[in-house]
Amino acid sequence: MSRDPQRVAVIGLGAMGLPMATRLAEAFAVTAYEPVDERAKQAAGQGVTTAGTPAEAALGADVVVLAVRDQAQLEAAVFGPGGVDETIVAGRVVVVTSTIGPDAAREVATRLDQRGVLVVDAPVSGGPVRAGSGDLLVVVGAAPEALAAARPVLDHLGSTVTVVGPNPGDGQVLKAINQLLAGVHIAAAAEAIALARGVGLDPRTALAALTAGAASSFMLGDRGPRMVEAYEGGTDEIKSRLDIFVKDMDIVTSMAARAHVPIPLGVAAQQLYLVAERAGLGASDDSTVVTVLSPAGE
Amino acid sequence: MSRDPQRVAVIGLGAMGLPMATRLAEAFAVTAYEPVDERAKQAAGQGVTTAGTPAEAALGADVVVLAVRDQAQLEAAVFGPGGVDETIVAGRVVVVTSTIGPDAAREVATRLDQRGVLVVDAPVSGGPVRAGSGDLLVVVGAAPEALAAARPVLDHLGSTVTVVGPNPGDGQVLKAINQLLAGVHIAAAAEAIALARGVGLDPRTALAALTAGAASSFMLGDRGPRMVEAYEGGTDEIKSRLDIFVKDMDIVTSMAARAHVPIPLGVAAQQLYLVAERAGLGASDDSTVVTVLSPAGE
Repeated sequence: MSRDPQRVAVIGLGAMGLPMATRLAEAFAVTAYEPVDERAKQAAGQGVTTAGTPAEAALGADVVVLAVRDQAQLEAAVFGPGGVDETIVAGRVVVVTSTIGPDAAREVATRLDQRGVLVVDAPVSGGPVRAGSGDLLVVVGAAPEALAAARPVLDHLGSTVTVVGPNPGDGQVLKAINQLLAGVHIAAAAEAIALARGVGLDPRTALAALTAGAASSFMLGDRGPRMVEAYEGGTDEIKSRLDIFVKDMDIVTSMAARAHVPIPLGVAAQQLYLVAERAGLGASDDSTVVTVLSPAGE
Repeated sequence: MSRDPQRVAVIGLGAMGLPMATRLAEAFAVTAYEPVDERAKQAAGQGVTTAGTPAEAALGADVVVLAVRDQAQLEAAVFGPGGVDETIVAGRVVVVTSTIGPDAAREVATRLDQRGVLVVDAPVSGGPVRAGSGDLLVVVGAAPEALAAARPVLDHLGSTVTVVGPNPGDGQVLKAINQLLAGVHIAAAAEAIALARGVGLDPRTALAALTAGAASSFMLGDRGPRMVEAYEGGTDEIKSRLDIFVKDMDIVTSMAARAHVPIPLGVAAQQLYLVAERAGLGASDDSTVVTVLSPAGE
C-alpha cells in the first residue's frame, strides 16, 4: 500500500479543472496553476493555493492532476519551461484527466516513466456540475501501483471509476468511444429540433414527446432544452464548449480509422462541428450547433 | 360526443398489429385481416375473429385500425380489391398506426374524406411488448370529431397519446422525427460497440460504462446488449426488422430535404441501413447492423 496522498496539484482551472480543484480542496491540500488570472482568483477564494508555474504547483505534491484542454497544453504544462517535469520526483503520480487520445497518453506515460514517475490515464466525463460534487465518470488505464497511489484522488472526483485496463491509453480509448456517442447524440438532437422547427412544429412540444420514448438520450434531455432556448434569445452560459467536440471527434475518427472500423455517423458529426466552428461557434455552448442547421433569424 | 366504439377491425397482424389486436380484444369485439395464415391463427387463439379480406374485417366496424407495414400495403388494404373502402360507411373512423410519412397520410385522408369517412393519423412507437400491454407512444394528427370517435381505441393502445395537430399527416411528421433519432441512435450504438471490439476492449464492459453516463440513450440500453450478443452466436429473435429503418429513414430524409433542413447524421444512418440491407440483413433484427461495421467472423 502506498501512503495516502496529502498534497495534490491541479494544472489547469478550466470548465472542469476549477470545480475539480475546489472539490479536491475539501479533502486535500491543493495547489493549482492557471494562466488566466480571473479563474486563478476564483480558485483562491475557494481554498485552493495558486502557483506561478506548473513546476511550482507540482513541487512537493503527492499527486499531480492534469486538467488541461488538449495534447498541446499538456505537453507545455508537463515538459515545457516551468513544467511539472522540472520539480516532480520519482514515485509520485501524474493523473491525466484530459481527453487527449490514447497515443498522446501513451507518449506522456513513456516519457515520465523514464523519470520513475507513475502515470494514471483517467479521462473524466460528466460536466462541470458533477465535477464539483465528485460525481464524475472516470475511465482509467493504469498499472496497479499507479492506480493505488492515485485511488483516493480518483474516488474523491468520481462516483463511478471504471478501470478499463493496465496501460495508460486504455482510459482514453473508452473515453473516445464515450465522446463518439455524446457527439453523435448532440448532433442528432440538433437535427431533430431543427427539423421540428423546419416543418412547423413547436420545438418544445416535439421535444417533450420525443424524450418520452424510444428516441430519448441523455443528450436530448440535457442539450435539447438549451437548443430550443437558442431560438428564444438563448443564454450566454457555456456548459461545454463546442470546439471540445472538434477535438474529440478528431481523436475518435483517427482511432477508428486505425482500427479499420467505419464510423459514418461519427464522421458526419465531426463535419457538422467543423462547420459550426467555421461559423464562429467554437467558443459557444455545444448546443448552438442547432443554429447551423436552422438559423435563429429565419 | 360520438358513441363509444364496440367493434374494431385490425388490418395487418405483423410485429405490431398482432399484439395491438390482442390488446384491443380485451376491450372490444375485434375482427382482423392478415394474409399470413400462421399469424392469423395466432390471433384467433387470443380472442380475435379473423376475416378473409380487409373489406370483410371492416364490415360493421366502428373503428378500422390499419397496422400494415408501409404505404404500398396500406393502399392495397384500403383501396385495392377486397379493400376496406368496399364496406366502410360514412361516419366511421380509420386509424392509421403505420409509419407511412405525412404525404401518404394526407393522401389517404383526402380520398376517404370524399366518402365521409373520418381519418385519424396515429403512428405508434414502442415495440411489440409495449403494444401488447397498451403502453405505446401514439402521436396523433386528427380533426376533433375524428379524434373523439377514435379516442377509446387510442387510449387502450397508448399510455401517452400526444395530439400534434388537427390534420392527418401531423402525427406522421413527429413520428418521422422520432425515427430519425431512433435510427441514428441505433447506428451510433453499433459504431460504439464495433469500435470497442475493434480496439480490443470487451464490448460488454464498454457498454456497461457507456450506459452509465452522458453517452446513454434508450437505444444503447435496448439494442446494445443484443449487438454484443450478435458476436456471441446471437439470437434469431426479431424485435424490429432492419428494413423498417430503410423505409423510415427514406421518409425522414425526404421530409427534411423538402423543409430545406440538413440532416447529415440522418443521411449517414440511412446509408448504413441500406448497406446492411444489401448485405442481406433486411429481415433481420435491426441490432445486426453492427455486423456491417465489424463482421462477427473476424
